[in-house]
Amino acid sequence: MKRFGYTIGVREDKLDEYRQLHAEVWPAVNAAMTACNLRNFTIFLRRFPDGKHYLFMYYEYAGDDYAADMRRLAADRDIQEWWKLTDPCQEPLTDRDPSEWWATMSEVCHND
Amino acid sequence: MKRFGYTIGVREDKLDEYRQLHAEVWPAVNAAMTACNLRNFTIFLRRFPDGKHYLFMYYEYAGDDYAADMRRLAADRDIQEWWKLTDPCQEPLTDRDPSEWWATMSEVCHND
Repeated sequence: MKRFGYTIGVREDKLDEYRQLHAEVWPAVNAAMTACNLRNFTIFLRRFPDGKHYLFMYYEYAGDDYAADMRRLAADRDIQEWWKLTDPCQEPLTDRDPSEWWATMSEVCHND
Repeated sequence: MKRFGYTIGVREDKLDEYRQLHAEVWPAVNAAMTACNLRNFTIFLRRFPDGKHYLFMYYEYAGDDYAADMRRLAADRDIQEWWKLTDPCQEPLTDRDPSEWWATMSEVCHND
């Protein structure tokens, strides 16, 4: 099972909205993630020393073609509607890879 | 299974040392974490917009007395020796809870 960690900023004026959205994630959004082989998906939040809030996203991938599953996820209608609400709440890291929205974090160590 | 997310800074002059230490975590350190019921333990690293590097730590807890297991972990001789090496590499968030070294992140959402 491959693990992924990503981070992104949250706009301060959208922080409450982001929290409220995620207090009741649409069942169709969770179902689409599961169908695309994402497992054990969690988002964490913390205020950082620069005074801004950042999210950390952790999940595991249970499939065998990550790129294809991510394309399938991005093509899902419910996911697209969900991202129309969540994207404006987020402030991506400017030095992220051009292909990314959330910025990849590198794995330092792991113990099962 | 309860999930935990924590964050902490890394001193820029200690970044290489921190990476090197974690490229070969002592088996006794991993064994102590497992004995104290920590599972699926991963640390991620990323440079943030303030120019500093931060770590994100994710793990799950499989026991039934987290506080007691954390005290047991902190009393382990190998863990104590390990922390003597890793603590000086880290720069804790100043607004963390006084009982913490790594700062707790709050969970925003989860999907199994």
